[in-house]
Amino acid sequence: MDIMDKLAVGIDLGGTNITAALLSEDGRIVQSVSRRTNPERGSGPVIEDMAEMVEELIRRQSVSRDDIVGLGIGAPGPLSHRDGIIYKAANLPGWQGVRIRRGLLERTGLPTVLENDANAAAFAEYWVGAGKGTRELVVLTLGTGLGSGVVIGGEILRGHFENAGELGHMIVQHGGRQCECGQRGCLEVYASPGNVAKQAIRRLKEGEESSMREVYERDGRFGSRVIAEHARAGDKLANELWDEACYYIAVGIINCQHAFNPPMLVLAGGMTKSGDFLLSRVQKYMQELTWKLLDDLPEVTISILGNTAGVIGAGGVAWAARNNGTLG
Amino acid sequence: MDIMDKLAVGIDLGGTNITAALLSEDGRIVQSVSRRTNPERGSGPVIEDMAEMVEELIRRQSVSRDDIVGLGIGAPGPLSHRDGIIYKAANLPGWQGVRIRRGLLERTGLPTVLENDANAAAFAEYWVGAGKGTRELVVLTLGTGLGSGVVIGGEILRGHFENAGELGHMIVQHGGRQCECGQRGCLEVYASPGNVAKQAIRRLKEGEESSMREVYERDGRFGSRVIAEHARAGDKLANELWDEACYYIAVGIINCQHAFNPPMLVLAGGMTKSGDFLLSRVQKYMQELTWKLLDDLPEVTISILGNTAGVIGAGGVAWAARNNGTLG
Repeated sequence: MDIMDKLAVGIDLGGTNITAALLSEDGRIVQSVSRRTNPERGSGPVIEDMAEMVEELIRRQSVSRDDIVGLGIGAPGPLSHRDGIIYKAANLPGWQGVRIRRGLLERTGLPTVLENDANAAAFAEYWVGAGKGTRELVVLTLGTGLGSGVVIGGEILRGHFENAGELGHMIVQHGGRQCECGQRGCLEVYASPGNVAKQAIRRLKEGEESSMREVYERDGRFGSRVIAEHARAGDKLANELWDEACYYIAVGIINCQHAFNPPMLVLAGGMTKSGDFLLSRVQKYMQELTWKLLDDLPEVTISILGNTAGVIGAGGVAWAARNNGTLG
Repeated sequence: MDIMDKLAVGIDLGGTNITAALLSEDGRIVQSVSRRTNPERGSGPVIEDMAEMVEELIRRQSVSRDDIVGLGIGAPGPLSHRDGIIYKAANLPGWQGVRIRRGLLERTGLPTVLENDANAAAFAEYWVGAGKGTRELVVLTLGTGLGSGVVIGGEILRGHFENAGELGHMIVQHGGRQCECGQRGCLEVYASPGNVAKQAIRRLKEGEESSMREVYERDGRFGSRVIAEHARAGDKLANELWDEACYYIAVGIINCQHAFNPPMLVLAGGMTKSGDFLLSRVQKYMQELTWKLLDDLPEVTISILGNTAGVIGAGGVAWAARNNGTLG
């Protein structure tokens, strides 16, 4: 088996599911498995599960352990890539200071690297996704919150405190709406799907007329998909909220333009399922809002990797660390 | 003369003055000269002047041309480092598409590099200034406008369109005050000394009571120094405006925290002459405004290079380009 047949393991650790995959050096998924996370069991059993998933991948693919160059884990944070520790995570309740890199190294024998999940997804877009061929890009993930990752010169921007690229917490409205992070006026409270849905529900409760009321009364909740659908169908409230989210996403992109000046900005996450209904509005506001000095807006595009970005990026980070000699 | 005695030339081209200096590899100014720019003469005569200044430095220092490793120019932009062209600049009226790198290379015979002046100043702070010893920093220059430069991993962040780190044009108040750049709500229109003075004058004209009125009636204008003085002396309007500027500088720093996560942020420019009267208020607002998730605020400090940062950084950029083999 020559180097072209070597593989890296990527693991995407989420609050609900764990996905693990074998990745070739050119970024193809050659084998993958998934399990429920059930993080409330604590980190020990979950790490055991991940180690078992690695064994299962090796067995299924009939490869030798020597052909696995290493293991990359993408996980929610805050975490330390440098130290391989998850400090805590909103969707891994009870986890605190988990030495996940050491745990997986010990159980699998594979050199292991830990990465922030949003950074891993950004790296995947750079490596084999919408940004393939560029050396720099920003990814904004419109999931529930607003995650983000930045790649500069082919490398993830991590920052001194390992917390760079938290673009959802840039202040776009000083003294504005309260964010769960403790700040006010964060981009996330205006542009993230979760917050758009929250605004919708608040306004329905206040008695505003909307075709979304029926869905809300039936399900007790809804997300950005419903808002997009009703906006498309002409509902006034849905349209206003969708438009506001697009406007703020454009503000966020302009701030990225002036901070990083990337050639490309990739939108990912659930909200991008609306495709051009999102993209064309965002682009319209970008043109309206940006400066007139230079024509340096990034190309804005939608992720082509979807929710495989996390596991691909985790494997990609392992490949990159292996190739630059930092895989420990 | 061994390598330790080699020198680079740095030129700081401003709208009012040109400063040129010989810089040792450890960042010391060993010789310097200055002239008026008079940019309205057009770029040709100004480039001639700069070439003469280089000859003058060489003559004064009694060095051989062979001991000069290269020439770095820091200039206002927008400009292209890659192509060595100044596209245009507000304070170089009439200059358009000036091939300054080629002009100076032809006239001096020295390999030449062009850099944005704010980037050069940031590089100087990283190289031998307040950020010496760090690999990453952000510099916000509170001059008239709000200039900025970002160093990551010991290199200037330039961006794909060569316009990264324009942090004064990050939107901090969507739909806010009009900026000259064409956007609304830019950090610069709230936090820059020029804009603070503009607000002061507007409010004096509206009839607000203030001890600054006398200065305004005498001089017809004033800057941030006067506002700081009167704020310190207890003037209500001056204090309110100074406080507002400090607040917005803190907002800008928090956005840098989440974008770049630097260990250090250096404040430079005229407004920093107020020292702790600026710094302590900015730090107070940083603590109030920032998130509670992590303790990852940068250390904020005031430039120690002052207005020599431009010429030192220009020479530093020449040294860096020479040492990584990109000096052309």
